[in-house]
Amino acid sequence: MPAPIRFYFDFASPYAWFAVPGLTRLAAEAGRAVEWRPVLLWALLKAQGLPPPMETAAKRAYMLKDMERSAAFLGVPFVPPEEMAISTHLAARLFYTLAEEAPERAEAFARAVFSAHLAERRRITDPAVLAQIASAHGLAPDAAAAAMGAPEAKASLAQAVDEAAADGACGSPFFVLDGEGFFGADRLPQMAWRLTAARRR
Amino acid sequence: MPAPIRFYFDFASPYAWFAVPGLTRLAAEAGRAVEWRPVLLWALLKAQGLPPPMETAAKRAYMLKDMERSAAFLGVPFVPPEEMAISTHLAARLFYTLAEEAPERAEAFARAVFSAHLAERRRITDPAVLAQIASAHGLAPDAAAAAMGAPEAKASLAQAVDEAAADGACGSPFFVLDGEGFFGADRLPQMAWRLTAARRR
Repeated sequence: MPAPIRFYFDFASPYAWFAVPGLTRLAAEAGRAVEWRPVLLWALLKAQGLPPPMETAAKRAYMLKDMERSAAFLGVPFVPPEEMAISTHLAARLFYTLAEEAPERAEAFARAVFSAHLAERRRITDPAVLAQIASAHGLAPDAAAAAMGAPEAKASLAQAVDEAAADGACGSPFFVLDGEGFFGADRLPQMAWRLTAARRR
Repeated sequence: MPAPIRFYFDFASPYAWFAVPGLTRLAAEAGRAVEWRPVLLWALLKAQGLPPPMETAAKRAYMLKDMERSAAFLGVPFVPPEEMAISTHLAARLFYTLAEEAPERAEAFARAVFSAHLAERRRITDPAVLAQIASAHGLAPDAAAAAMGAPEAKASLAQAVDEAAADGACGSPFFVLDGEGFFGADRLPQMAWRLTAARRR
């Protein structure tokens, strides 16, 4: 059984969302599972000593245009959120709580959270919005409310950030394929190339 | 006559060198000229308020691996130079001096300088190395020596940095196609997509 592809991302990261369809396709073609690992980008960057993205006017102006273009190029629905740099710790805690019970439900929840934030302009910082999405994926409202403050979920998220830093992640999305790191949605073609080589061996 | 594609780069930038074959191909297919515009990356980043690349251990470690992989993926010869972050003002001044006389010789000179630094481990900070490359492209040694200190060449380079900043460049390579900016060698597929759409109109 070949190793899964690890997928580190922040729910607020448009480029991570843009990578999802291509990653899903490429993993399916190669017979690999995808291990979804939400992290907090600000905590990861802090751990790596890196500055936040879009820290200056020039970079921000470029990235906003590049996001719209990249979404259209990749055919991914994208409606820029009112606020781009939000904290996604509540969504990530819900993810890790669901992942304890059933990984495939956690993945479906993650896709729904991404879509809510980056295609539907819903506020994923709002516990009520998150509880509604979680309940559509099998987590009852009271369980969701508990999960958002649960020490176990906090610990899982902190561990994911530590592991991402140890894996050399320097942003979102960051992928680990057979021990090798790939940063950015635009590295999917190089991952496909590696997977083709791995299947030939 | 469709507008040329503007290509801002620093001679020390591996990703700019990696973009050259793909850019050349894509421009030829679309019937577009390429306007080569060497800049000084440090001066451009300073103008835009951006930090230098590879500013931390994590980012540097990732980028060194990514460069080797990207070169192999794109089929571009690459031997990592002993020193990565060099000042390329002498090479750029020679370029602008040659460009005054004959743009196509300047382009051939630029390709040779890239290759010397990023595939042949020659020191392009050394005036003797640069004079030798320049003489192979029609600039006599005494003219090359004069060009490296010429106020006109300095002014052309400073102007290119100003124009790059005005065009929104936030790194190397940066391309401008029909008024739209594209940052990075991995944006060539999106440029090809825009060129296809432009030809359909």
